[in-house]
Amino acid sequence: MKESRSKQRLWFNAPKAPLLIVLSGPSGAGKDAVLTRMKETGFPLEYITTLTTRAQRPGERDAVDYRFISVEKFQKMLDSGELLESANVYGNWYGVPRQPAKQALDRGQDVIVKVDIQGAATIKRVVPQAVLIFLTPPSPEELALRLKERHTETAFDLALRVKTAEAEIRQLPLFDYVVLNQRDEIDRAVSQIKAIITAEKCRITPREIKL
Amino acid sequence: MKESRSKQRLWFNAPKAPLLIVLSGPSGAGKDAVLTRMKETGFPLEYITTLTTRAQRPGERDAVDYRFISVEKFQKMLDSGELLESANVYGNWYGVPRQPAKQALDRGQDVIVKVDIQGAATIKRVVPQAVLIFLTPPSPEELALRLKERHTETAFDLALRVKTAEAEIRQLPLFDYVVLNQRDEIDRAVSQIKAIITAEKCRITPREIKL
Repeated sequence: MKESRSKQRLWFNAPKAPLLIVLSGPSGAGKDAVLTRMKETGFPLEYITTLTTRAQRPGERDAVDYRFISVEKFQKMLDSGELLESANVYGNWYGVPRQPAKQALDRGQDVIVKVDIQGAATIKRVVPQAVLIFLTPPSPEELALRLKERHTETAFDLALRVKTAEAEIRQLPLFDYVVLNQRDEIDRAVSQIKAIITAEKCRITPREIKL
Repeated sequence: MKESRSKQRLWFNAPKAPLLIVLSGPSGAGKDAVLTRMKETGFPLEYITTLTTRAQRPGERDAVDYRFISVEKFQKMLDSGELLESANVYGNWYGVPRQPAKQALDRGQDVIVKVDIQGAATIKRVVPQAVLIFLTPPSPEELALRLKERHTETAFDLALRVKTAEAEIRQLPLFDYVVLNQRDEIDRAVSQIKAIITAEKCRITPREIKL
């Protein structure tokens, strides 16, 4: 009986450890748009909503796009270790809550979190087995255009963000995959991310996540 | 001008090095059926036809399923270094011709070769950057059934092949990916292989192939 079970393990795909996918990239790369489209396609993933202390932008929905919380609440969660990572970007706090990610992984469900590049670096240190995807616009010019269209940045902010993005691109080696988010080709980026997840689940060497 | 070009390299996906994909797995795993289906879907790959000295089976087409050649011709190609790998399996020779693979890679085209597990091990030694996919039936019982249905094996051959396959499964750690080929779910295996290729092309660290 025991031998037959061990033979089965040799033959069958072992039950796959769930994945922690980190979607990152410069501000303006289109992370939110890509995630929204992925959700629409019904791809089976647990999407962890990022917490932020920044002001809600027009059109953004609380608890969907972000969970907008006060600096005090954020600080409290940070102090009690409830954040998987946290970063201050352009003066605002962003954080990934640990509990919903841990609970989904414990259920065997793949998890995706959206973080800026500082956050991705932090997660890679804490969870080396995380799969890091770098989403990037095709060019600096395209990035500047997208940020401008957002109408939420001052000229100073805009220049700062483009400059930051150029520095961030140099963090590429930290990441496992790069996905180019071409304008009007968001479905292509989405299908590449899905392919990455499918392929990762076929890897011989499983990525065992401990949160 | 130079700086702007180097910036572009930082931003854009570098032109991707073509991949050498090795599809392997025990005899009876369904490698031929999977490759035939992949060809039908028009997936852009250069399919390298394996050379063999074994007898042509009913229904097999020369230069499509295999290139059937004499032992003398095989020996000559082996001696002149024209084979990327070669192996003697159950008394017959199999080999992957080097030239068509090299020419396709030089054109920037991804290449897929089909080899038994001995052959995959050889290719991994010669070309460590090759992407090795292990195709496997869901169980030893399923494998025996498939080999029986082929009507080409004697009872002795059959037992030998099942026993060999059980040993071969232990070679899994050599491979990068495992794809389960469930009966009646060949499209699933095909789409997993496509996902693996798509994901590999998104990897940050390119796999530079030298043939």
